[in-house]
Amino acid sequence: MVKATALSLDPIVLPVSPMIANKLFAGVEMGGTKCVCILGTGPDDIRAMERLPTRTYEETLRDIEGILERWRNQYGKIRALGVASFGPLDLRTQSHTYGFVTSTAKAGWRNSDVARRLERSFGLPVGFDTDVNGAALAEGRWGAAVGLTDFAYVTVGTGIGVGTVVGGKTVFGLNHTELGHIRVARRAGDKFAGICTFHGDCVEGLASGPAIEARAGMPAPKLAADHPVWDFVAHDLGQLLHTMVLTTAPQRIFLGGGVLSAQSHLFERIQQELSRSLNRYIETEELEAGIGQYIVPPGLGTMSGPLGALALAVNADIGGVSRAFTPAMTVSQ
Amino acid sequence: MVKATALSLDPIVLPVSPMIANKLFAGVEMGGTKCVCILGTGPDDIRAMERLPTRTYEETLRDIEGILERWRNQYGKIRALGVASFGPLDLRTQSHTYGFVTSTAKAGWRNSDVARRLERSFGLPVGFDTDVNGAALAEGRWGAAVGLTDFAYVTVGTGIGVGTVVGGKTVFGLNHTELGHIRVARRAGDKFAGICTFHGDCVEGLASGPAIEARAGMPAPKLAADHPVWDFVAHDLGQLLHTMVLTTAPQRIFLGGGVLSAQSHLFERIQQELSRSLNRYIETEELEAGIGQYIVPPGLGTMSGPLGALALAVNADIGGVSRAFTPAMTVSQ
Repeated sequence: MVKATALSLDPIVLPVSPMIANKLFAGVEMGGTKCVCILGTGPDDIRAMERLPTRTYEETLRDIEGILERWRNQYGKIRALGVASFGPLDLRTQSHTYGFVTSTAKAGWRNSDVARRLERSFGLPVGFDTDVNGAALAEGRWGAAVGLTDFAYVTVGTGIGVGTVVGGKTVFGLNHTELGHIRVARRAGDKFAGICTFHGDCVEGLASGPAIEARAGMPAPKLAADHPVWDFVAHDLGQLLHTMVLTTAPQRIFLGGGVLSAQSHLFERIQQELSRSLNRYIETEELEAGIGQYIVPPGLGTMSGPLGALALAVNADIGGVSRAFTPAMTVSQ
Repeated sequence: MVKATALSLDPIVLPVSPMIANKLFAGVEMGGTKCVCILGTGPDDIRAMERLPTRTYEETLRDIEGILERWRNQYGKIRALGVASFGPLDLRTQSHTYGFVTSTAKAGWRNSDVARRLERSFGLPVGFDTDVNGAALAEGRWGAAVGLTDFAYVTVGTGIGVGTVVGGKTVFGLNHTELGHIRVARRAGDKFAGICTFHGDCVEGLASGPAIEARAGMPAPKLAADHPVWDFVAHDLGQLLHTMVLTTAPQRIFLGGGVLSAQSHLFERIQQELSRSLNRYIETEELEAGIGQYIVPPGLGTMSGPLGALALAVNADIGGVSRAFTPAMTVSQ
């Protein structure tokens, strides 16, 4: 078990809200290759954290249930669970497959019940959303989006995912959003066909870690900063952000994930691509002199993911809209 | 003056909500070439409507003020005003240029005060939003989006505009949204450079009325349904909708404006392009067998625009969030 003290957390200066200080929550970040279970009340009070490989559906759920059961015996009453999962997910609360992972390409996971099963196993409220929506909510509750109502969290790694908060809630209509699969204008001269099995050259097919590796013949984190592939990747991610600015108008955009952590030069290049592409159509400080503060790393660093699951648990405990971070519950500064 | 009885309104079957039945509102739809002033309580109770050409800023505002003043003398107390305007607009309520038309290319209108001026002129609350956001709110309050929380209104005419409602409110973060200016994947073989002065081949630059005319050498409404230009236009609008489905996930999309009214064959072609492009990545009834009910004309027909201004007046009267349509205020069926 990874002890809380061993975590490399970015410094968190906010105090724990007295409203949630004594309530213990558990979260599960479910990824395609690993899951992270987390127990605590917030970023500065993590009681336990444990990683496990994502195996078959049945094996993985049993592993998760084992950890949570053990924690309950060891640490006492848990108020609620949160699950921030790879998708696509069915989040329509009226659906008979609510809480399922649905059309995933991941073997053995198609149409598998996650949220309702954990609800039954533990008799607790379960908050359930996409991994990136969870991460965005965590930034809103504890991280660098405190005080904002509209923002987005982008991760560029094995895939490309975007969590979007509009008016204090993650976006949810027909279903959850999937910005990694939008198609963008191609950079002149880019002949790469893309690797997305659904869309070929959607953003994920063009600029995710595996796409970059397919373009360059080497894993993305190992490529030199001056490798020509970054011209294409910065362009394509700049186009993703161009679309985000015009469709959901975030007040700030967080860029995280393995590719961006390893290749921090991309921040400035993506900022330049975005500015060039918008071409001063939107005239705000944030998109001009302030762009360095507009497109930034997540405030919770690599803890955005697990804390996203914890944020969903907090929401499930508050009840009502599980996709909101309630401003009244936000830690005051 | 155009009499209410002379309007070609789509039939409206909903009764007037008793909560707003006795309150008289005035709206102004401000377009690039004409403005429409409207007075009433809702779509089935329009007391007066008047069109005027959009001239210089000063002339136009004086014309509008003259009409509203005359109506106030003739019809009695007006509760609130709504202005649904061409943009871009400054909608940041804390800004000292709140209520202004900002970076428009329209001569004499750059950085011009609209909402605050009308507030001062009449001493009334003024609801202010983009023309397309107003139209979307009207669909939510009185039209074909009643009962929905997440939907979008697209107009394809002189420009391309999209009003987006997420969680019952029009989207507003950094500023209002501008989906007409997103850039999309190009159709293979399309060499048209686009006509947008800011972005060249953004959606508006590729598929608005003037763009279609530039492509085909003839006004869009006059082109035959089998003209090859529609292959490109349907593709580009299908890409716009692909992005909309994945970024704000509307439960229904309304397509209106001059081009779509004149070329109704586009509906089916856009539906096909969207389905083909998403390639069953999102598996819902709405995007498969139900797509004919998912992408539809506006329920308020050509009255979406003026009624959008009226909806903003209703919101301004309710107070609080001027960008919401309050479900409690929605007319019950």
